[in-house]
Amino acid sequence: MKPDHIYKQELKKIESKLTAYFKGKNPESLYKPSKYVLEGGGKRIRPFLVLTSAKAVGGEFKQVYNAALAVELLHNFTLVHDDIMDNSEMRRGRPTLHIKYDQNTAILAGDILVTLSYESLLKDCKENSVKILQTFTHGIIEVCEGQSLDKEFELRSDVTINEYKEMIYKKTAALAEMCCSIGARIAGADKFNLKAAENFGKYLGMAFQIQDDLLDLIGEEDKFGKKIGSDLVEGKKTFLFIRALEKSKGNDKKLLMKIIKNKGIEYSEVDSYKNIYYRLNVIDDAKKEILRYTKLALKNANSLPDIDGRELMIWLANALIGRNK
Amino acid sequence: MKPDHIYKQELKKIESKLTAYFKGKNPESLYKPSKYVLEGGGKRIRPFLVLTSAKAVGGEFKQVYNAALAVELLHNFTLVHDDIMDNSEMRRGRPTLHIKYDQNTAILAGDILVTLSYESLLKDCKENSVKILQTFTHGIIEVCEGQSLDKEFELRSDVTINEYKEMIYKKTAALAEMCCSIGARIAGADKFNLKAAENFGKYLGMAFQIQDDLLDLIGEEDKFGKKIGSDLVEGKKTFLFIRALEKSKGNDKKLLMKIIKNKGIEYSEVDSYKNIYYRLNVIDDAKKEILRYTKLALKNANSLPDIDGRELMIWLANALIGRNK
Repeated sequence: MKPDHIYKQELKKIESKLTAYFKGKNPESLYKPSKYVLEGGGKRIRPFLVLTSAKAVGGEFKQVYNAALAVELLHNFTLVHDDIMDNSEMRRGRPTLHIKYDQNTAILAGDILVTLSYESLLKDCKENSVKILQTFTHGIIEVCEGQSLDKEFELRSDVTINEYKEMIYKKTAALAEMCCSIGARIAGADKFNLKAAENFGKYLGMAFQIQDDLLDLIGEEDKFGKKIGSDLVEGKKTFLFIRALEKSKGNDKKLLMKIIKNKGIEYSEVDSYKNIYYRLNVIDDAKKEILRYTKLALKNANSLPDIDGRELMIWLANALIGRNK
Repeated sequence: MKPDHIYKQELKKIESKLTAYFKGKNPESLYKPSKYVLEGGGKRIRPFLVLTSAKAVGGEFKQVYNAALAVELLHNFTLVHDDIMDNSEMRRGRPTLHIKYDQNTAILAGDILVTLSYESLLKDCKENSVKILQTFTHGIIEVCEGQSLDKEFELRSDVTINEYKEMIYKKTAALAEMCCSIGARIAGADKFNLKAAENFGKYLGMAFQIQDDLLDLIGEEDKFGKKIGSDLVEGKKTFLFIRALEKSKGNDKKLLMKIIKNKGIEYSEVDSYKNIYYRLNVIDDAKKEILRYTKLALKNANSLPDIDGRELMIWLANALIGRNK
């Protein structure tokens, strides 16, 4: 079967397992909102990373379905709480949870989601469970630290590219790394294969996040699902912004500093800032960086023993680099 | 050594271990607020339950210090998020976290606290770790469900005593039960002793919560640390309120229904409602119920093999029933 067919097939299974997870759970005031979040869809990349990593080190999908659900539950916990913190009103074309219900409901729904993620993961833990759970826990700690850094950066004007990379590592790549790690660990990977699977996740995560920054500016609006230039409007410290600030001089620098000072710009100003980015060549810088991380991910994938798993990883990396949403 | 000396000695150790847990952690924007919460003090009953349970089944304190820290980190996670949800401005004589900092900081601090609780627990897990972690996770699920029920009850006028008991079981007693369970499990308890330790925690938790309801009304204000009658003011469905509503007729019933309709009363009205409670004898009902649960807790404690651990449990139960804060 071709990788994209396997992906679609597994996606279906994950969707139905996620729905089943909430069946019959009470009280409704807690689980209905949690279910709403999970029904928002998404690419389910993180569970797929768990599956492919297990496969690539020589294991089977069926060993890690509960772990795959766990990382998706966990990911959605971070989305729910981040959306409150960022005042986001829409996600995947639907009202965010604190808008649909209220803030208290959303806080508690996030709390139960992270707890259910442990519950689900534990179902796939037999031997070596302490290490697996430590890896999982460490992944959540990184995500919280990353979110905290992201919020810190909003208030700072001197964020460097290295600090930015540390932040997106913690906020995005560490979780992808963790997904691959627990998939490989549960499937019984040796030390060498474990490291390669983890590196695949980590580098893919880095590429993914920088591409996310890029798509926010040059993506197609109807496919990306949010308004173009929202990072500029919100004054976010993205790869593009930090790189542009580093390279800029004179009037461009002044205009970029204005974003920091005013904590963002108007949508009507997006195009003129886009021109600055093009002028300073930071769009190309981002593309190069995405390519560099993707190549590192592929190198690690290629060192893994199972050909089917390897192919899935390579397909996934290429699909993500070619995505427009 | 006498139980109260052991308690004081262990309390000191727990305090210093809690402080040490946050040392050197970065980013500060995440860990400083979390540390602030833990510095608020408190009786540290939950860690003490872990310690005494390990001891009472024949183990040692030193086997479970990390597990003891874990339950305190976890408890503080629930306090931080509950304080946001309940709009509480003060706790233990200090501003709550979302007041001291802001709401986003408090959401994220709660998130890292629950994660650190797993991190700490995992340090004490060797054999049997899946069961221990499942017990821990199940405890958190119960707490979230309990909080959700508590919020549901705020909107309902027909809450029964049994529903109330289910709610406080989930919100308070299940966590105490879990503390005793993981303490006993890590110390290698057999099935019989495990169940007795769990029951001790569960019944103690039930007694503790009903007493909390009682102290809110008849406690000494300076010792209890919050204003007397705050549950009435907030229109909370406490043991006293539900029992009074069940027993009341005529004008008393009308006055009690008014609390539900208006979602609370003024502080100036507390005394007249206190009189209704005395007239309907629900203060005595609560005292009887506290005593009944405490006796059940003691019965279970007395069935455990280690005399020193047993004595600690008995001392703790008596100290809690005699407390005024």
